[in-house]
Amino acid sequence: MNQQQYVDQLASNVQRAARSLRSLNSAVRDQVLRRVATLLREKTPEILSANVLDLQQAASLGLSKAMVDRLTLNESRIADMATGVEEIASFPDPLQHVLESRTMSNGAQLERISTPIGTVLFIYESRPNVTIDGGALCFKSGNAVILRGGKESLASSAILAQIFQSALVEAGIDPAAVQLVDTPDREVVRLLLQRNDALDLVIPRGGESLIRAVVEQSKVPVIKHYKGVCHIFVDKTADLQKAGPLLINAKVQRPSACNAMETLLLHRELGSESIQNILRLLVQNGVELHGCEESCRLEPSVRPIENTDEYHTEYLDLRLSVKILSGVQEAVDHIEKYSSKHTESILAEAKEVQEYFLANVDSSSVMVNASTRLADGGVYGLGAEVGISTDKLHARGPMGVESLTTYKWILRGNGQVRK
Amino acid sequence: MNQQQYVDQLASNVQRAARSLRSLNSAVRDQVLRRVATLLREKTPEILSANVLDLQQAASLGLSKAMVDRLTLNESRIADMATGVEEIASFPDPLQHVLESRTMSNGAQLERISTPIGTVLFIYESRPNVTIDGGALCFKSGNAVILRGGKESLASSAILAQIFQSALVEAGIDPAAVQLVDTPDREVVRLLLQRNDALDLVIPRGGESLIRAVVEQSKVPVIKHYKGVCHIFVDKTADLQKAGPLLINAKVQRPSACNAMETLLLHRELGSESIQNILRLLVQNGVELHGCEESCRLEPSVRPIENTDEYHTEYLDLRLSVKILSGVQEAVDHIEKYSSKHTESILAEAKEVQEYFLANVDSSSVMVNASTRLADGGVYGLGAEVGISTDKLHARGPMGVESLTTYKWILRGNGQVRK
Repeated sequence: MNQQQYVDQLASNVQRAARSLRSLNSAVRDQVLRRVATLLREKTPEILSANVLDLQQAASLGLSKAMVDRLTLNESRIADMATGVEEIASFPDPLQHVLESRTMSNGAQLERISTPIGTVLFIYESRPNVTIDGGALCFKSGNAVILRGGKESLASSAILAQIFQSALVEAGIDPAAVQLVDTPDREVVRLLLQRNDALDLVIPRGGESLIRAVVEQSKVPVIKHYKGVCHIFVDKTADLQKAGPLLINAKVQRPSACNAMETLLLHRELGSESIQNILRLLVQNGVELHGCEESCRLEPSVRPIENTDEYHTEYLDLRLSVKILSGVQEAVDHIEKYSSKHTESILAEAKEVQEYFLANVDSSSVMVNASTRLADGGVYGLGAEVGISTDKLHARGPMGVESLTTYKWILRGNGQVRK
Repeated sequence: MNQQQYVDQLASNVQRAARSLRSLNSAVRDQVLRRVATLLREKTPEILSANVLDLQQAASLGLSKAMVDRLTLNESRIADMATGVEEIASFPDPLQHVLESRTMSNGAQLERISTPIGTVLFIYESRPNVTIDGGALCFKSGNAVILRGGKESLASSAILAQIFQSALVEAGIDPAAVQLVDTPDREVVRLLLQRNDALDLVIPRGGESLIRAVVEQSKVPVIKHYKGVCHIFVDKTADLQKAGPLLINAKVQRPSACNAMETLLLHRELGSESIQNILRLLVQNGVELHGCEESCRLEPSVRPIENTDEYHTEYLDLRLSVKILSGVQEAVDHIEKYSSKHTESILAEAKEVQEYFLANVDSSSVMVNASTRLADGGVYGLGAEVGISTDKLHARGPMGVESLTTYKWILRGNGQVRK
């Protein structure tokens, strides 16, 4: 079978499976997910053996320590996967919600109800647990999915996909509802991304270069998240008692997260002493500062930013850009230019300053007196998290499993025609 | 100025304008729209003169009669444009709606509110009125728009865009909120479609080939509507008293509409006589039938369908495909294969047959005992109509002006951090 035939088969299988999922009720779907969790626990030794194959190969591929860590499974990580699937099963059904309903003037009944999108291609990198997580999120929402993991995790992903498929088969469901691309061939991905006849949605999860490559090639709509260059602006009216712990939380608690603060904007009228206190507090907490000339003068450990393009940087690390500026308008201008439109926050007590910021910052989450780290599906109460979208269409910001649904209009009449 | 510089200027202008629209309230936006209507009425002679230039050129371009008709403006069409803009002004503001609101367990207040998408590229063909309609829909929803009409309507579109811009300038608003591409150069469109850094959305309006070309080239998300191959299935349990007028309405009332019936599926167990009556009624109403072998035997005027690919045809004309089949399951299979997923209807009295159809047909509108012609934003009560989407993401089916909005999450706290 050549690549084109392989892709044709994946595509025709996923369409057939999506069709069969339309009439499946949520009790059956949740039961399958719980069975997946049980099988994950039962088959832990087999999963670990498969993972050893990937890890052995990792050495020969020369993977970085961080990548090997992401690839590594152990009993506790497998137990977390199982719990995660059970949690997804426990969330409310996102399908069959009546989103609108009315009796039309002609007497017909019009409803708009949530339905599965249909077919999804999930592309991810080294973490094999996405095989289960992506599969579970799609199946929960009635979508059939093609999973494409990284080549370094192929053996681990393969056994995880098999486990998912055995739970499907036991329940009499087409196993093609969760298919894994079982070849590392990149041409297969390129061909799949052309198939907007068969695929409704692509979700890439991983680094910016993966996501850019998918967007570049895809004819299928993509929901994506490039990066989080999140800003906090400390206004002169900020309550500095709150500011300290909040800024530390935003930068230090988990610097590798996309919702961590990457740039701190400071109102000049806070005064030298307050600005110095803020910068020193960050330094004391292990943060390496990169700042404008003015900030370098106030705190000698700040490294000068030579090129303003550096303000685009997503450090994902204990490093932070700093800029001192003239107030909320300049802060909004800076954000407009450098933000990735993920999450921005203002620390200010003055109402009109808060409202100017909320109205004029065009990011998926805009906050007042809160840590950017709060931008999260779990914290927002969305249930199972699909990701955080920096797009504006379909879904924006933290996405619950509803982002994997669409809707259809249902009109029930008794002979109505167009006048 | 070369093409790249021209596109750079359009892109930077539209971004600047979008930003300035964020803080504009709906009273101001509606007032501008009403002023556009007044100016259209006042400047009718100038609009007609510009249109004459296009019509003179149309002869040399060798345009078809239908295209010349679409291009032609007269007093009544200009009056309709003005009324249309006033109607858009009269609809509720789609912005600043609180879509969700809750107090989080940490005490912060979380809201999801509707906001403009930002920047839109509207691409259309010969009808110059789309310059006003597209401009008004985008401006109503707080979006800045680049309008790109057909080359044959350039003079008419130019004066219409100028009128819109004078209303903007009078109100102190950046006229780049409604820009017209004033060159027929196709390279400009190609370059614009690469600019996903500056443009949030493309809406192509026109024939299938225009839309396919846009999708093929665009890195910017597209909301589109390829075609409407709408089906009606007449089950053996259908009320044939209702069926006759309904089928005539669906096919004959406006055959050029995308929601007109293109294929009629008939349950074999209706029996020869009922099937013959239905087919004859259509023929008596001027419909040319193209059908399966069985339908040809029952009604001699039916032309045989030689190749099943013909069932993909969107006639947009008084022609209709006909197929006789074994029941609702085969009907759903046929629809799955040949439908454009726009609108399908079943005529049936049996509840379980209706429900099977509703659950298993995956189209933007699915109807019971109603004419497909009802799939329309106005009929659905959506207010100003942006179009009908056959996509599944963001908006599906008839789209109101809300389809030109997105949302942002607003979190108001008093020092909350991530635990």
